[in-house]
Amino acid sequence: MNKQNLIQQINVKKSFLCIGLDVDLEKIPQHLLELDDPIFEFNKQIIDATHDLAVAYKPNTAFYEAYGIDGWKSLKKTIDYINKNYPDIFTIADAKRGDIGNTSTRYAKAFFEDLNFDSITVAPYMGSDSVEPFLAFADKFTILLALTSNKGGLDFQVLKDKDGITLYEKVLQQSLLWKNSDQLMYVVGATRPEYFKKIRKIIPDSFLLVPGIGAQGGSLQEVCKYGLNKDIGLLINSSRGIIYASSNSDFAEQARGKALDLQKEMEIYFS
Amino acid sequence: MNKQNLIQQINVKKSFLCIGLDVDLEKIPQHLLELDDPIFEFNKQIIDATHDLAVAYKPNTAFYEAYGIDGWKSLKKTIDYINKNYPDIFTIADAKRGDIGNTSTRYAKAFFEDLNFDSITVAPYMGSDSVEPFLAFADKFTILLALTSNKGGLDFQVLKDKDGITLYEKVLQQSLLWKNSDQLMYVVGATRPEYFKKIRKIIPDSFLLVPGIGAQGGSLQEVCKYGLNKDIGLLINSSRGIIYASSNSDFAEQARGKALDLQKEMEIYFS
Repeated sequence: MNKQNLIQQINVKKSFLCIGLDVDLEKIPQHLLELDDPIFEFNKQIIDATHDLAVAYKPNTAFYEAYGIDGWKSLKKTIDYINKNYPDIFTIADAKRGDIGNTSTRYAKAFFEDLNFDSITVAPYMGSDSVEPFLAFADKFTILLALTSNKGGLDFQVLKDKDGITLYEKVLQQSLLWKNSDQLMYVVGATRPEYFKKIRKIIPDSFLLVPGIGAQGGSLQEVCKYGLNKDIGLLINSSRGIIYASSNSDFAEQARGKALDLQKEMEIYFS
Repeated sequence: MNKQNLIQQINVKKSFLCIGLDVDLEKIPQHLLELDDPIFEFNKQIIDATHDLAVAYKPNTAFYEAYGIDGWKSLKKTIDYINKNYPDIFTIADAKRGDIGNTSTRYAKAFFEDLNFDSITVAPYMGSDSVEPFLAFADKFTILLALTSNKGGLDFQVLKDKDGITLYEKVLQQSLLWKNSDQLMYVVGATRPEYFKKIRKIIPDSFLLVPGIGAQGGSLQEVCKYGLNKDIGLLINSSRGIIYASSNSDFAEQARGKALDLQKEMEIYFS
């Protein structure tokens, strides 16, 4: 998928909602546990119920790896299901990978070729040659952690150098120099709306993947106020708030309700 | 495994060698490709041939994920084989994971419980609450990226704050304040021997996992000069230099030869 396809989808759906598929067998409706692959069944029903309201789905790999090989099978079935049935959807492997060059290429192959995701989240700590191998894949996106929504995000990301430049700003600035940097997007937590203005000065045109709305306390309005750009430029993620709206047999319908609430809030930003 | 078990093994074997199991189907002897699970067969023969010379094995997960579900099966068979046949060996999942609290717990379960590794490498960018969930697992170790061996390692890790403290030093300092910090080890690249002295001042007692010997140009003697502590305190990793010593049917024997060369170099540090 290229950037224009994503922007077009956003405008058609009047939505920039990303749904996080972080599946926990202890939280899904218990009747699904009788099925062969409860994780996939859960995802399938959520996706079928929300695909016209969301522009992206984002499984976090941790939730699948925790179930070992069965979890990876569920992940593969989920991404295959989306790619086959809803090819316009933008898919994000929330994997937070990153390693030295040769090895990052392996991760890129795993997520871009074997699983065929449109994008992957990547950690910046190891620098340029840990990220550029991901950027070498055409029509695939690398979503770099910049300013994360968790408490510990402040431990290192806002440390300042002698000129007052914070680490996350350095990450943004440096990343623009990397090869194929137009295939970069960035993770910026909704819990830090005060930073969006500054961030938009450095990367006015990039898409931002924004977790932290809902359960973590971030506000959609605040994020939009400073984060929107001419292409919308935001993918607002909600995971638990949508997928666990109900633990009964009506879970998919309830999830749709929550997704619709957010899509309605987003609609006002389309003229 | 606890730290004393590891130290004991090091002293018995007079070795602090870690062998990186980064298996690439294009590089292994081609006769193995006829077998059902060539990755596992390759690992098994390498492990059988070197287990008395190495104290740790370190599969890098990228190489397994690149082969999809089959790769994960090979990884599981490999770790199961080591745990069953060589239970004294220290095992490292070189996975460079890290996410917000709840999610890091999932990764910890995947690697410490489902796969039963003794340790995992973790990226520090997301701070305390992305690492502490790993440290909550008793007798398991979390190996934090500090100063990596790649070129890009210098992009952010040596950025200085107004007091001249570099980011990797901040990571070391801060990590000592985290809960169960005695279960931390650190990745420090062999390509940066000049930094070991400084690092040992901050973390005199911790084990360091040191990649970058051999193919990447690091020197064992230089690393030992500044890095050794009273418990040895180093795990020197070699991957390609050992496992791809030969691409013929004698590959395991040749790998043993390379491992023996390194073990002999290490022996002089035991009095």
